[in-house]
Amino acid sequence: MPGPLSQLRRGHEELVLGLLRRHGPLSRGELGKHCGLSRTTLYDILAELVASGAVVAATQQEAPRGRGRPAETLTLNPDAGQAIGIDFARRAVHVAAVNVAHEVVGSASEPHPAGLPWEERVELAARLVRGLTGAHGGGALRLGALSAIGVGVVGPVGGPGDDPKGHDRLAGLLRERFGVPVLADNNTRLAALAESIWGAATGVEDVLYLRLSHGVGGGLVVGGALHRGAYGLSGEFGHITVDPAGARCDCGGSGCLETVASIRAVLDAYRAAGGRAEDVPELVKAVREGDAVALGLLREVGSRIGAVLAALCNAIGPSVIVVGGELAETGVALLEPIEESLGAQIMPVTRNRVSLRRATLGEAAGALGAIALVLHESPLLSRYPADGDEGERRPAAPDRAEEPMNPARRP
Amino acid sequence: MPGPLSQLRRGHEELVLGLLRRHGPLSRGELGKHCGLSRTTLYDILAELVASGAVVAATQQEAPRGRGRPAETLTLNPDAGQAIGIDFARRAVHVAAVNVAHEVVGSASEPHPAGLPWEERVELAARLVRGLTGAHGGGALRLGALSAIGVGVVGPVGGPGDDPKGHDRLAGLLRERFGVPVLADNNTRLAALAESIWGAATGVEDVLYLRLSHGVGGGLVVGGALHRGAYGLSGEFGHITVDPAGARCDCGGSGCLETVASIRAVLDAYRAAGGRAEDVPELVKAVREGDAVALGLLREVGSRIGAVLAALCNAIGPSVIVVGGELAETGVALLEPIEESLGAQIMPVTRNRVSLRRATLGEAAGALGAIALVLHESPLLSRYPADGDEGERRPAAPDRAEEPMNPARRP
Repeated sequence: MPGPLSQLRRGHEELVLGLLRRHGPLSRGELGKHCGLSRTTLYDILAELVASGAVVAATQQEAPRGRGRPAETLTLNPDAGQAIGIDFARRAVHVAAVNVAHEVVGSASEPHPAGLPWEERVELAARLVRGLTGAHGGGALRLGALSAIGVGVVGPVGGPGDDPKGHDRLAGLLRERFGVPVLADNNTRLAALAESIWGAATGVEDVLYLRLSHGVGGGLVVGGALHRGAYGLSGEFGHITVDPAGARCDCGGSGCLETVASIRAVLDAYRAAGGRAEDVPELVKAVREGDAVALGLLREVGSRIGAVLAALCNAIGPSVIVVGGELAETGVALLEPIEESLGAQIMPVTRNRVSLRRATLGEAAGALGAIALVLHESPLLSRYPADGDEGERRPAAPDRAEEPMNPARRP
Repeated sequence: MPGPLSQLRRGHEELVLGLLRRHGPLSRGELGKHCGLSRTTLYDILAELVASGAVVAATQQEAPRGRGRPAETLTLNPDAGQAIGIDFARRAVHVAAVNVAHEVVGSASEPHPAGLPWEERVELAARLVRGLTGAHGGGALRLGALSAIGVGVVGPVGGPGDDPKGHDRLAGLLRERFGVPVLADNNTRLAALAESIWGAATGVEDVLYLRLSHGVGGGLVVGGALHRGAYGLSGEFGHITVDPAGARCDCGGSGCLETVASIRAVLDAYRAAGGRAEDVPELVKAVREGDAVALGLLREVGSRIGAVLAALCNAIGPSVIVVGGELAETGVALLEPIEESLGAQIMPVTRNRVSLRRATLGEAAGALGAIALVLHESPLLSRYPADGDEGERRPAAPDRAEEPMNPARRP
């Protein structure tokens, strides 16, 4: 856990980057005036940011200051790729990248057979990243300033059910390949974070994301941050019991939501009721054609889902629920019964406070969420001493030692 | 919402108070060396803290610095009452106070008839607070440094269902009486926060608190902070549907947990099954005497509660569940079936990660939580300009203008 002081340092770094983002190029003196940090602290942080390539120095020609040489200004490096996100899904690799201004500068995907070894998946990811960075095209992203790679993986990370050996191996391969720290989390949880930043719930602070796919899972964004829970397992909406006497679930429980609302569960129930569909696109086709069996089934499944969401809304109070995953492609046939049962069981006083939306980021969500993970939990921090409040400080640049930090205080 | 800069300032203030708490008395130069803030920022913050009485100046006699007059040191004021908490429950007022070291220095309670007007309840609270501060006894607390009053009230605050007129009136009466800002929240939610700081879950970052009383409610502590939800209504565990065909609930829904697990619901069901109890103490007596009807009923109720808690654990992932309220006094007769049904429906992989505990703070929990509210969300902040990064700064103390903040940089 980072202590309060390293959190403070991260806050300082974000403050400096934020000032450059809002104001454009600034001199060190101007930065000092705006940020309220001591020159020692500010110069430490600027030295790190320049060394990492996130910030570049440029001489301000347009506005000479009247006396002596013009002040050197600092600016964000627009070509610096600050973070890459890679989603290692079951049967595909997705990558995306942002620059230091936190703009998404590219994304790419490629499917692969299930069970591909980590080495080959990392090779594939590296190739997709090279494609983004222009080695194989006209891309403009440079990786010299890369601060970290965010990674989404299937299954739990850092808690019970985690595969620490596999994940360590993956992180090792990525570090070897890219030479930077690697941060990982569950890709469904990361998709929740991405939808709250770039997707269906952009800018919303409290989001519940439900993913209806081969598994049923999700994630919570609480006060703008990804919620993990005490032991790294949260957002396991698919394993909430909806029928204690129901079917056995892969998790070891019985009658979990996943046993009625996963792709397989829905397709099995559809076929058992006489429908014909081998996959979700065929089910979507049946729904569009008004197939009564499909519509009735989705009504039933949606009603179960809505009841679970109502309970969670009463407990957690999100303002937006985002529904993603392949089954969401059945559209209103599923979303309408979800909304009805949600409305029937949520506390009446909050009924109009929650809106239900379909996810918008599609298959890139996990990779984008992995980038958000890096931006929220930057390992730049680890370059500072662990508990630096009593530690050694680098001296300030000698040629500026007499300049007060706050120009307003000049006589 | 406070912006990142006011959050930063609050961080600075907490940093300075934390350094004084850990190191004892420090000179301004030593504080500057430890905290890494500019002298302007540090002196601003120290001026506020001294003005508020939280910090006092004292000349350090023991260790003269070798040349000139001894440096003035600053220290926490142990007699400064930093915060008072008042819980306006339905039929009682509870008060508690802490000093600037965040130690609880006293608490008091007094029952009153239901429906007592706000004026009289505030009078009662003021009398209880005077008792704590020594005007009517030997207490040591001085209120000169009081920074705020935290208040717990029944029902929602700041969202749908809130009573803004009543709450504004209460806040006005308290401000008039004590002359400081007032922060309010729902008292059940505040009890959750208090249990995570001073009670059954001390130091636990992710806590689910369930209160089984005349109503059924609770609160979530997420990452050490009180969780409110997007529209101020969260922790409404009592209004999660456990039986869509069940009894009508006061909230307008049907079959809510509250319709089976509130004091009235349990006593009604007990009497309907032939038991005799007018109140919870009589029910507790029956349980202790091994009354089979009471035990069977609590088993059923506990099983319902455990199922709800299991769903919430899968979604949220707390490490401790605290059960409070009068019905928790039935002890293992209720807690055991809760634990069993929780264990049966929680994801097997997390079954041993969650512990179930009885609340320990009793009736003082709400008032203590109101103090925690003040400590977490100090209105000291509001004394700074709202978006101060571009604002005017007070000049540093003139007699120290040439002293560098970081003594290590002296020639």
